[in-house]
Amino acid sequence: MNAPVSAIEQLQLELPDLDWINDPGRVARLSQDFAWFSPVLKRQLEDKRADTVVRPRTEDEIRRLVGACARRKLPITIRGSGTGNYGQTTPLAGGVVLDMTGYNAMCWVRGGTARAQAGIRLGDIEKATRPTGHEFRCIPSTFRSATLGGLFGGGFGGVGSINYGPLGAPGNVLGIRAMTIEPEPQIVELRGAEALRMHHLWGTNGLVLEVEVALAPARPWLETLVTFERFDTALAFADALARAPGIDKREVAFFGSPVPDHLGQLAEYLPKGCHAVLSLVDAPAEDALKDLVAAHGGTVTYRRDAAEVAKSNRTLMEFTWNHTTLHALRIDKSLTYLQSSFTPGQYIQQITEMEALLAGEVMMHAEFLRNMDGLLTCSALQLVRFTTEERLNEIIAIHRERGVRINNPHTFIVEDGKAGGALPPEILAVKHRFDPLGLLNPGKLRDWPVRPA
Amino acid sequence: MNAPVSAIEQLQLELPDLDWINDPGRVARLSQDFAWFSPVLKRQLEDKRADTVVRPRTEDEIRRLVGACARRKLPITIRGSGTGNYGQTTPLAGGVVLDMTGYNAMCWVRGGTARAQAGIRLGDIEKATRPTGHEFRCIPSTFRSATLGGLFGGGFGGVGSINYGPLGAPGNVLGIRAMTIEPEPQIVELRGAEALRMHHLWGTNGLVLEVEVALAPARPWLETLVTFERFDTALAFADALARAPGIDKREVAFFGSPVPDHLGQLAEYLPKGCHAVLSLVDAPAEDALKDLVAAHGGTVTYRRDAAEVAKSNRTLMEFTWNHTTLHALRIDKSLTYLQSSFTPGQYIQQITEMEALLAGEVMMHAEFLRNMDGLLTCSALQLVRFTTEERLNEIIAIHRERGVRINNPHTFIVEDGKAGGALPPEILAVKHRFDPLGLLNPGKLRDWPVRPA
Repeated sequence: MNAPVSAIEQLQLELPDLDWINDPGRVARLSQDFAWFSPVLKRQLEDKRADTVVRPRTEDEIRRLVGACARRKLPITIRGSGTGNYGQTTPLAGGVVLDMTGYNAMCWVRGGTARAQAGIRLGDIEKATRPTGHEFRCIPSTFRSATLGGLFGGGFGGVGSINYGPLGAPGNVLGIRAMTIEPEPQIVELRGAEALRMHHLWGTNGLVLEVEVALAPARPWLETLVTFERFDTALAFADALARAPGIDKREVAFFGSPVPDHLGQLAEYLPKGCHAVLSLVDAPAEDALKDLVAAHGGTVTYRRDAAEVAKSNRTLMEFTWNHTTLHALRIDKSLTYLQSSFTPGQYIQQITEMEALLAGEVMMHAEFLRNMDGLLTCSALQLVRFTTEERLNEIIAIHRERGVRINNPHTFIVEDGKAGGALPPEILAVKHRFDPLGLLNPGKLRDWPVRPA
Repeated sequence: MNAPVSAIEQLQLELPDLDWINDPGRVARLSQDFAWFSPVLKRQLEDKRADTVVRPRTEDEIRRLVGACARRKLPITIRGSGTGNYGQTTPLAGGVVLDMTGYNAMCWVRGGTARAQAGIRLGDIEKATRPTGHEFRCIPSTFRSATLGGLFGGGFGGVGSINYGPLGAPGNVLGIRAMTIEPEPQIVELRGAEALRMHHLWGTNGLVLEVEVALAPARPWLETLVTFERFDTALAFADALARAPGIDKREVAFFGSPVPDHLGQLAEYLPKGCHAVLSLVDAPAEDALKDLVAAHGGTVTYRRDAAEVAKSNRTLMEFTWNHTTLHALRIDKSLTYLQSSFTPGQYIQQITEMEALLAGEVMMHAEFLRNMDGLLTCSALQLVRFTTEERLNEIIAIHRERGVRINNPHTFIVEDGKAGGALPPEILAVKHRFDPLGLLNPGKLRDWPVRPA
């Protein structure tokens, strides 16, 4: 007689044609994302892992897998490339990590819209859309490896949000194809506002198979770094550039000193101690950009036109948003970060105030974007010199007391990361409908505690 | 012995190869624009006319004409198609009307920019740019007949200003080629900020030969009319649509009742007494637009996609900005209008307040746009039931007292129309440099009084 067979072994025996990964090292790695940015999440999650990882290649494989897991009440944690920072690819209760990267075909590109399978890399979508004159509206700095499903599930926005706001602003995501987690999985098309009820919930309330998005016209983006001697003039320049309605742009980032000192790969363009503004503006705006630089006393230290960027395969986009954090943390392991939303109309004053209060311990990296209401504002991904979790929480409190919203990246509880709120009823209704057994990444939604596998 | 020859006759004898217009009816018509929108300007200007009109076809013809006028100290009033409303094509001191419409070639279209001679019609520029996937950034409702030089000289913005702000926002106009008014005319290229010193001065401080502009990506614009029963919900819808960062748009106009009743050609889509919002949004945004209409309880009464618009050769763009005024004044000769700038962040409250104060006498037509600082706001081109000039001035005062800026369209003094201010020194320096003899449209700049011809 054989030894008793575990639920996971039964699953693999039932579905032998699927691409299973059981090697402990690979399972451990595929159970992680970039949560190590946070010393808190690192401590909480570093020993958590799946029992197995599976990488389906077709909708039918996904359907058979989900059905079999649901019948056995096995937890499923969905992941793309794992470029997120919130530990949402790490199962708290073991079970199966469902790696979507094998499910990665383009469905179509037409009329300024595109649809693809969730596991496609964002960079591969742009390869398909650029010949039609289009590009992604809001793309994370991780676009080279990050997946479409990952962006939809765990992304907020990024490069391009200065025009289109967050990915969740109506009109950016047009529809999704989603699957219920049941013994007989159902497949449903959700459009518009309904689709967005599965957005930014990290695959905790539904399994997304395909995503359809509206695109932006592609432009010949000019990439520049402009350096300044003073924090306030650099910030004023960034703000003026971000506002200027006649200068089309895709990205404006402000790096207060000493953030630029942490971007080692750009060191030759960033004199020690400088403040810097990174931008992508449309090629015809170069003269207007130069006028603005001159008016603020800045120095253009780096300039690459679109042809040079394409040829070099290096883009400043990979030094923005959380890539700035990544470059810095690679250089200095004692750093961590925050995520903040400033207030439209007050962001300059708020950034200036926080710099005055916390310079040396908190280093300002602000990204300009439109909010859901179309108002220009800043998000910051400040670098923080980490000492203790208590001090980190004090720093968060200092921000919140002064009206700066913190989207805490040091928690894996979805509700706490999303500004400390509860989830609205329509989101919970989607959870009930698409995951009635509570098998999706259990423990990440506060109201759905971990069930034993 | 012949009768003494007038300066105009001498001019024509000197330049017999130019295209002169001396027929009194045509001269009278070519001395006018749409200043009849204003009963004040109509009274002041209706008997003013040039001594002759000339329509040069080459830069050499323009140069010879200008040199000969300068030697004789003959006033020159420059015009395009005469679609302006401020009487700036009407000479106060006779002389020559220089009609630029014969100087109308495209120079080139490349990389999202275009350059053309001043007399080209805006519609003809778009015919040249559309095959490259580009369109005008800010185009007036008069684009079919209005010229590029006229837009630069007398235009403010228009359809597209909701994205790009006024035409004068840095980055929209890249450069101009201009001529001095001297016996030996000089030709100068002005770039960027320097070029803008000749913008919106109606040809009173220089003669513009060519204009180079940055373009916008062309889109398949969906044209709709949405009607509402209530003023406030229509206005809230227009504002939400204008703000929505995920909905690409080219135009959002709000027509408070009874403005829609004055758009006779659209009567079948505008139920008597309705409030209406006219918009052009990018085709992929249609579902998001419909969601927004539903959320505000509106009714889509008109919908034409880009193919239908192209086929019909009718566009709602020709019912916006001062075309709304034109349609209304054609139906009701007792109407005139205002031009107002509201305050970013306060425009809904200001429009609501003005409606409460003046409904019945002043009818609200607001256009959404970004200001020079990139902030979303409204301009209004209110219809006004005209009684007396005194009452018109009272209405203007009521607006100004409540913080609504009036760009008075009932004066031909450039400084008074531009918010009642004096011209800055750099503008006056251009006047000194390019028109040292004060021959350009004398009497329109307060500080350069009419000289006898």
